[in-house]
Amino acid sequence: MTAAAQINPPTRLLMGPGPINADPRVTRAMSAALVGQYDPSMTEYMNETMGLYREVFQTRNEATMLVDGTSRAGIEAALVSLVVPGQKVLVPVFGRFGLLLQEIGERVGADVVTIHRPWGEVFTPEEIEDALKEHRPDVVAMVQGDTSTTMNQPLEGLGELCHRYGALLYTDVTASIGGNTLLVDEWGIDAATAGLQKCLAGPSGSSPITLSERAVEVIRSRKHVEAGIASEDEAERGERIASNYFDLGMILDYWGPQRLNHHTEATSMLYAARECARLLGEEGMAEAVERHRVNGAAMAAGLDGLGLQRFGDQAHRMNNVVAVYIPEGLDGDAVRNGLLQNFGIEIGTSFGPLHGKVWRVGTMGYNARPDAVLTTLSAIESQLRLAGQSVVAGGGVGAALEIYADAGLR
Amino acid sequence: MTAAAQINPPTRLLMGPGPINADPRVTRAMSAALVGQYDPSMTEYMNETMGLYREVFQTRNEATMLVDGTSRAGIEAALVSLVVPGQKVLVPVFGRFGLLLQEIGERVGADVVTIHRPWGEVFTPEEIEDALKEHRPDVVAMVQGDTSTTMNQPLEGLGELCHRYGALLYTDVTASIGGNTLLVDEWGIDAATAGLQKCLAGPSGSSPITLSERAVEVIRSRKHVEAGIASEDEAERGERIASNYFDLGMILDYWGPQRLNHHTEATSMLYAARECARLLGEEGMAEAVERHRVNGAAMAAGLDGLGLQRFGDQAHRMNNVVAVYIPEGLDGDAVRNGLLQNFGIEIGTSFGPLHGKVWRVGTMGYNARPDAVLTTLSAIESQLRLAGQSVVAGGGVGAALEIYADAGLR
Repeated sequence: MTAAAQINPPTRLLMGPGPINADPRVTRAMSAALVGQYDPSMTEYMNETMGLYREVFQTRNEATMLVDGTSRAGIEAALVSLVVPGQKVLVPVFGRFGLLLQEIGERVGADVVTIHRPWGEVFTPEEIEDALKEHRPDVVAMVQGDTSTTMNQPLEGLGELCHRYGALLYTDVTASIGGNTLLVDEWGIDAATAGLQKCLAGPSGSSPITLSERAVEVIRSRKHVEAGIASEDEAERGERIASNYFDLGMILDYWGPQRLNHHTEATSMLYAARECARLLGEEGMAEAVERHRVNGAAMAAGLDGLGLQRFGDQAHRMNNVVAVYIPEGLDGDAVRNGLLQNFGIEIGTSFGPLHGKVWRVGTMGYNARPDAVLTTLSAIESQLRLAGQSVVAGGGVGAALEIYADAGLR
Repeated sequence: MTAAAQINPPTRLLMGPGPINADPRVTRAMSAALVGQYDPSMTEYMNETMGLYREVFQTRNEATMLVDGTSRAGIEAALVSLVVPGQKVLVPVFGRFGLLLQEIGERVGADVVTIHRPWGEVFTPEEIEDALKEHRPDVVAMVQGDTSTTMNQPLEGLGELCHRYGALLYTDVTASIGGNTLLVDEWGIDAATAGLQKCLAGPSGSSPITLSERAVEVIRSRKHVEAGIASEDEAERGERIASNYFDLGMILDYWGPQRLNHHTEATSMLYAARECARLLGEEGMAEAVERHRVNGAAMAAGLDGLGLQRFGDQAHRMNNVVAVYIPEGLDGDAVRNGLLQNFGIEIGTSFGPLHGKVWRVGTMGYNARPDAVLTTLSAIESQLRLAGQSVVAGGGVGAALEIYADAGLR
């Protein structure tokens, strides 16, 4: 037997691109007592959770619920349920998570076409319209905020645009939701999926999802069988959703008034997801976005004040994460390791074309707070100094304080 | 905004076929602070969890880890990763969860053949060998314990049998593991998947999995692409695993020394899964099985003492769940609702051919304890009396006490 002690993780301040520290109220909610799957209190909690996430997504979609898995589970559930194999999916790629949509689309049998922007930029509506005209996709799948580049793709008007060309619009809002404006109904988004581990201030492991009536119609048009009871011989391959776990029709029937048995809901994760949305509801969605804007601006200004250069189109940066170039001659990973070892603070590395070139610093969810930002800037200053970099003393904190003073912090 | 209060579930004693009350140490472990995905403490917890589940599965399989989702996620991950579309999968069906394996097999494109035993019975090795001879499957997929019938399929020797006919053996041990003997290596099982919400005393939402070298070889022979970085144009449809989230090759590379980024591990669920296995390790697997045997026997004897007739082949019943016929003239759901409303105790209903015919009573995980068994028997006696059924006073508790006295309870 492996000897293992009671869990006792070190105290970390997680200021990378996520996951981040959960709000303690969220992790406390997870330790609440379990109830049965169809206990009246459980079905009521499920209904409440649906209502709370309608507010988070800014939608009236009845079909608003949780997929039991990480944010990636939500993406796959959306794509495998919405796309019949062979149908065309257009993926505008502006970072790593666009590539993930492409890959998942290909895995579930879609005919995927991509358009690309260089990392650090976003698409104009015209570029997307050109691709719609050329490719006539059934579904457009794109990320709202891509942490790999820190970019926030404007989505306003894109739903209407997609619908004009006969396409559904799916978007992965994992990194952006809660920290950046997202208006699912107003923007005509047909499906959106998220995760708890960024601006929602929870742990990874539950994926909130919302589906428009149009999306539900597509899903309902596909062949289903009742969970585990019988197989449907006449279901033709391709029409039936090639997954049971991610069959959103079955998941809808489990969350809906029919309460048809599907998976056994991950009750503790539901408690967490509910608490994340409940806390955001108390704060207000616009207020949460503004909190992320102010704290993100303070972090970015602070990094400027430390002499670091920002990466990417700053007019389209997400509020909750900023990337800065690693100064010439510094070992980026050594600085990150020093921050973790000496100060217990985590910041992010990067992927693909940015590998080894930038650090990514997040201010999201529970950590979108002045004390977390100022502590991080102080620690980065110290660690840069330990690494032999010359830095203006107090330049980071000073620049951040200017932002906070403008925002009314006294 | 939906008004929602802080979570405050009613106190329930969950004595159905699962989910059950989690051990409080498990839910407390979930509220531990989060750390980063590649924090040294996190990767160490991942490694410890792999070691702890090797003990739980009784295996030396290096490929022993967690799938982030409910037990059903583990099933789908095993089948979509092990089976190339068009390959033959034999599913011996003896209850609802066999039908689920059939359905998931069909969804992932397998050519599924089934053999059947009536609900309440199990297969002999000869019946399985006959089917192996006739169908020559690539994979045999079967449930160990099926809660729908309470049956425990003997698996001893089946691995060798399957291998002799060129098949891999996959088994879903969600309902049985921890409460019934399971010897993955000794029985030659190539893949087994589980869930926390039964005898492991945790919440639903994480699926422990173990894979033999033979199974890993099959998975490694399929085409992969690195997570989200690039697509592999030459991957032919069918050879590539038709899921990113459930691609066990990628999940292996995330848990293995390469630590390739895949999903963001559901850290709180990992803490829960680790604690479940840690507590079982402290107790010992054989001791845990014996605890389930004694408490399950006491519950079954107690239900006899209340004049209820057991369902199914008692020589092959799981230790942790018993089904009894609903007495003629009683409304089974009314009795269950009464138990919940009056005593806060949940017992199970049933599905398919047993719908409305039996109750299912579990004694599993944290609830495999004399006080939980005796409390439940008392409450059932009271509720039967309220429903107008004549019962021998104290007959349930008395019969259970005889079992406990034999087991040394003083």
